[in-house]
Amino acid sequence: MDVSIIMGSLSDQVIMEKASQVLKELEISFEMRAISAHRSVDFLFEYINQFPQRGFKVIIAGAGGAAHLPGVIAGKTMLPVIGVPIKTATLEGLDSLLSIVQMPQGVPVATIGINSAANAAILAARILALQDSNIAARLSSYSKKMEQKIKALNINQGIEQV
Amino acid sequence: MDVSIIMGSLSDQVIMEKASQVLKELEISFEMRAISAHRSVDFLFEYINQFPQRGFKVIIAGAGGAAHLPGVIAGKTMLPVIGVPIKTATLEGLDSLLSIVQMPQGVPVATIGINSAANAAILAARILALQDSNIAARLSSYSKKMEQKIKALNINQGIEQV
Amino acid sequence: MDVSIIMGSLSDQVIMEKASQVLKELEISFEMRAISAHRSVDFLFEYINQFPQRGFKVIIAGAGGAAHLPGVIAGKTMLPVIGVPIKTATLEGLDSLLSIVQMPQGVPVATIGINSAANAAILAARILALQDSNIAARLSSYSKKMEQKIKALNINQGIEQV
Amino acid sequence: MDVSIIMGSLSDQVIMEKASQVLKELEISFEMRAISAHRSVDFLFEYINQFPQRGFKVIIAGAGGAAHLPGVIAGKTMLPVIGVPIKTATLEGLDSLLSIVQMPQGVPVATIGINSAANAAILAARILALQDSNIAARLSSYSKKMEQKIKALNINQGIEQV
Amino acid sequence: MDVSIIMGSLSDQVIMEKASQVLKELEISFEMRAISAHRSVDFLFEYINQFPQRGFKVIIAGAGGAAHLPGVIAGKTMLPVIGVPIKTATLEGLDSLLSIVQMPQGVPVATIGINSAANAAILAARILALQDSNIAARLSSYSKKMEQKIKALNINQGIEQV
Amino acid sequence: MDVSIIMGSLSDQVIMEKASQVLKELEISFEMRAISAHRSVDFLFEYINQFPQRGFKVIIAGAGGAAHLPGVIAGKTMLPVIGVPIKTATLEGLDSLLSIVQMPQGVPVATIGINSAANAAILAARILALQDSNIAARLSSYSKKMEQKIKALNINQGIEQV
Amino acid sequence: MDVSIIMGSLSDQVIMEKASQVLKELEISFEMRAISAHRSVDFLFEYINQFPQRGFKVIIAGAGGAAHLPGVIAGKTMLPVIGVPIKTATLEGLDSLLSIVQMPQGVPVATIGINSAANAAILAARILALQDSNIAARLSSYSKKMEQKIKALNINQGIEQV
Amino acid sequence: MDVSIIMGSLSDQVIMEKASQVLKELEISFEMRAISAHRSVDFLFEYINQFPQRGFKVIIAGAGGAAHLPGVIAGKTMLPVIGVPIKTATLEGLDSLLSIVQMPQGVPVATIGINSAANAAILAARILALQDSNIAARLSSYSKKMEQKIKALNINQGIEQV
Repeated sequence: MDVSIIMGSLSDQVIMEKASQVLKELEISFEMRAISAHRSVDFLFEYINQFPQRGFKVIIAGAGGAAHLPGVIAGKTMLPVIGVPIKTATLEGLDSLLSIVQMPQGVPVATIGINSAANAAILAARILALQDSNIAARLSSYSKKMEQKIKALNINQGIEQV
Repeated sequence: MDVSIIMGSLSDQVIMEKASQVLKELEISFEMRAISAHRSVDFLFEYINQFPQRGFKVIIAGAGGAAHLPGVIAGKTMLPVIGVPIKTATLEGLDSLLSIVQMPQGVPVATIGINSAANAAILAARILALQDSNIAARLSSYSKKMEQKIKALNINQGIEQV
Repeated sequence: MDVSIIMGSLSDQVIMEKASQVLKELEISFEMRAISAHRSVDFLFEYINQFPQRGFKVIIAGAGGAAHLPGVIAGKTMLPVIGVPIKTATLEGLDSLLSIVQMPQGVPVATIGINSAANAAILAARILALQDSNIAARLSSYSKKMEQKIKALNINQGIEQV
Repeated sequence: MDVSIIMGSLSDQVIMEKASQVLKELEISFEMRAISAHRSVDFLFEYINQFPQRGFKVIIAGAGGAAHLPGVIAGKTMLPVIGVPIKTATLEGLDSLLSIVQMPQGVPVATIGINSAANAAILAARILALQDSNIAARLSSYSKKMEQKIKALNINQGIEQV
Repeated sequence: MDVSIIMGSLSDQVIMEKASQVLKELEISFEMRAISAHRSVDFLFEYINQFPQRGFKVIIAGAGGAAHLPGVIAGKTMLPVIGVPIKTATLEGLDSLLSIVQMPQGVPVATIGINSAANAAILAARILALQDSNIAARLSSYSKKMEQKIKALNINQGIEQV
Repeated sequence: MDVSIIMGSLSDQVIMEKASQVLKELEISFEMRAISAHRSVDFLFEYINQFPQRGFKVIIAGAGGAAHLPGVIAGKTMLPVIGVPIKTATLEGLDSLLSIVQMPQGVPVATIGINSAANAAILAARILALQDSNIAARLSSYSKKMEQKIKALNINQGIEQV
Repeated sequence: MDVSIIMGSLSDQVIMEKASQVLKELEISFEMRAISAHRSVDFLFEYINQFPQRGFKVIIAGAGGAAHLPGVIAGKTMLPVIGVPIKTATLEGLDSLLSIVQMPQGVPVATIGINSAANAAILAARILALQDSNIAARLSSYSKKMEQKIKALNINQGIEQV
Repeated sequence: MDVSIIMGSLSDQVIMEKASQVLKELEISFEMRAISAHRSVDFLFEYINQFPQRGFKVIIAGAGGAAHLPGVIAGKTMLPVIGVPIKTATLEGLDSLLSIVQMPQGVPVATIGINSAANAAILAARILALQDSNIAARLSSYSKKMEQKIKALNINQGIEQV
């Protein structure tokens, strides 16, 4: 399995499923887990210790508030860890963003925009595409479709012309 | 030993020593450690596992940036954990504050003002004073001295009188 | 009675009752009051003066906006004071957080995340557990239940498996 | 005496003396005190209780961080209270500003810009000028001098002309 | 007429009417106007020029966004000007607050919390009470009612008692 | 055609149409396009290369989040570029504003308030009016109508008079 | 004369002279004035009333704190007004930026990055170049020089090559 | 060559060289370029077009203010792009962070903490280690050295022991 998606709380699921949808569309294998860095850290570490035999290549971790999950994972594995700051009920997600991105030297987290779980999946695909030309090809056609969609909108139908 | 002071990085030492100075003044026993929550998490957990036999009652943890140390400790112990947000070179300490204080339900960190390590020590003393009348007495006289110092300044010397 | 929960305004009640619910669940005795630090400060000080004979050990104080209540109480008692910043209609609770946490040297407030009244109660329990092994035991089983709940979610039902 | 200038800490003195300088220039009588709202609140309340017999008409209060002094005074007197947020070593004075200006309904503090103690004095003069035509006259000539200074700079010397 | 309430836009009316309600309750005479500092500045200046013969003593000005109205008025009159930052659809009112409170030296605006128009009226009453003992008496009874309301809530009915 | 309105995403259309409405009212010719600076940059550059023969004089570009569209256009054309920060689902539009306004030396973007697309159109009209007296006349009558509307509201109907 | 550079205070001169230097380099005529929107608003309005006979085409206005100067000018003229937020001693220039950019509908200010007075001059040149091909030519060669400077740095000398 | 380090301006060099130092230490081949996304975008695109034949696998891009460089590159390549927000003279790097991290769907930038160029290099190494066991081994020993350094500090020398 290529990717593990971990979220700090089941309340993050509605956001994090945008990552799983993109991975499915790009035919990248993954599994999804809800494990708190604070309330069940031993279980989290057991899971991280399985990374080598499970064969994960990229970890996507989403959390909100004092969002330690991505950083704690990044301290225990040498795989690239992608952090998704989840917007919670206060502070507009600024707390989540800062507690994920501002990591100390030696332990980077590849941080994505607030609630941008889809982009976490695309970044994972970019990393995996470095060694898998099938993923590269699927990612490339996914991007071209986006560009053509925009072009078509303007040329064929226009938005407004005075 | 009553208190363990843990800092995420030796660069936090100049701030965290304000905590040790107050604890000394109040004759509260403590030890001080620099352990990163990210770069040496196994060593941190070994240390936390010693808390029961070491007899610590309160933990003071200081960290800056994506400051996960206090929260990670609070997830592994049931002792009260006091968090000190350290101001780093960017964002004026707002990142440190938010990543310490905004903890998820179930795992509180008693957060103190940015760089206010002295107050972390005084809060520890207030907690310890609940079961140690000697500490209560020393804390009380420490407070009275502060109030009298201010009173004296105004009555005896004045600041300015027109 | 172990804990006093004080809120600056009755509009804070819906948030602060999350603290009382946790205290009940942990069988910790408490009472709850609405007293403004600004509009009824004399009544507040009368109440604080009763703390010694009432036997309170920890104070939980919640307030929003220019949230002075926890700090003003902390200046009049030597008990540990836990501050709960309440999110109000503007500024996302940042004002409440900063006016509670940024206390001057000598008068700490143990600050909790915005609207995190449940965590204030758990922090109070951690402090009380230092001298009450029954509270320690109940708090411990409360935490274990949380961890097992998460473990069960992942093992038995999974979130998603591709 | 017309005005009392109160500061939360002697470290605020260098800023608050800009208020006393303007009051002197406008020949408004005042006195200056350093009294913490947290560390010596009883002494503060004794002082506030003297306001009626002392004859103060306006109170200027400066404080930094969790700056409760102006709000606590405003809760104990019905005189107009002018708050000066002092910039401290962290957060650029945003904490001071928010904890002074965001007062609850019923207890307003007339808040001035961060570190703008001179403006606090001018606002006090505007209030006193409502019932004292001498102060009104001095304030008026003070303002005219400012406007003419700017006019002269441009007309006589110019800044730059291409 | 004692007070003029000016708002930058009719969209501010729902907030600013909280000021007029308090003034009515305190029997202070006032009038209310909507005049933009940007879109109708000449009309604004005509109105300001009438202040002396109209006999206003205090001006309350509310505006949102780049909220220049209170500051522009304060530059043209020597009456005390109270500024009310109005929360608009973006930035939670922070823009309104900063563009009202951060005035340059010489031209203070007495700033009130975001959307706190009621407090603007109470501050106006505190200023007017300096020379009108009837207003002072009504303001005093208004405050006492608030304190007793809170006391009654706690003593007679309690919030919760365990 | 005088003006090109470009938006980064069709989700910005509801805001950007406020610009087209004002341009219509001022009888200024324009066209409107949705082109992402990131997902279809080649198409964007083809379009920018047509600016000279199309005869555009002013470009209005709106985008949200990491809003690069206005800046990227400003780097490829020497026409004045007006940037409209669009408020998205997180951070209240602060991200959009900062990523549009804080351009490096040499490549200015004329930035307008968050979501203020109508003002972008008026600014375009002010620029075009420098060389087109008809636009100047229409803009002038548009402004006078606004001022008279406000004057009428106050004089004829009043808001409230006590 | 094509451009008027107006600053709110002589303390802004060191920043605003970056605008005059660029205008000189592009051989665009201008004059520079220091006029406060608050302390000398009548003098400001006299000056604005001279705009038509003076023949200005673009106004550059810089101010800090509650920075009303650009907006007040934009309310009195129909020329394009470019606003330069000046960073002052507190809040990192965020106050200046928000009080310039967040203008109400009908009165736009073309806002430039904090302290980016050079960019204000380049934006003025882009506007003037619409009707003056000499300015367009000079601006074009100014931009080409920048691009070649960067290209040369990389090709001839490289930064670092491993 | 494995990595290209691109910075928006030569003023970013002092920060970005921390990335090159780490890459050297880990024996990862790279080159370093200064290319503005705004002032020399054609040259930037020529360079990006060379990526395939140059064989780069990861791009590190640093920029400050309205920091578009990483996002613009990410829109033109399908390689993973790591963004380094550079702190500039205003706003503490918050502008740089938000304009790098808040990318629209489809075009992710792997964002690192403000000024954390060393972490960008380590993240690049984590990505490259997925397909290069030598880099994995060097990265692993680099991490172990860090952990042992901290352990040694505490065990052998202690920080302070009371």
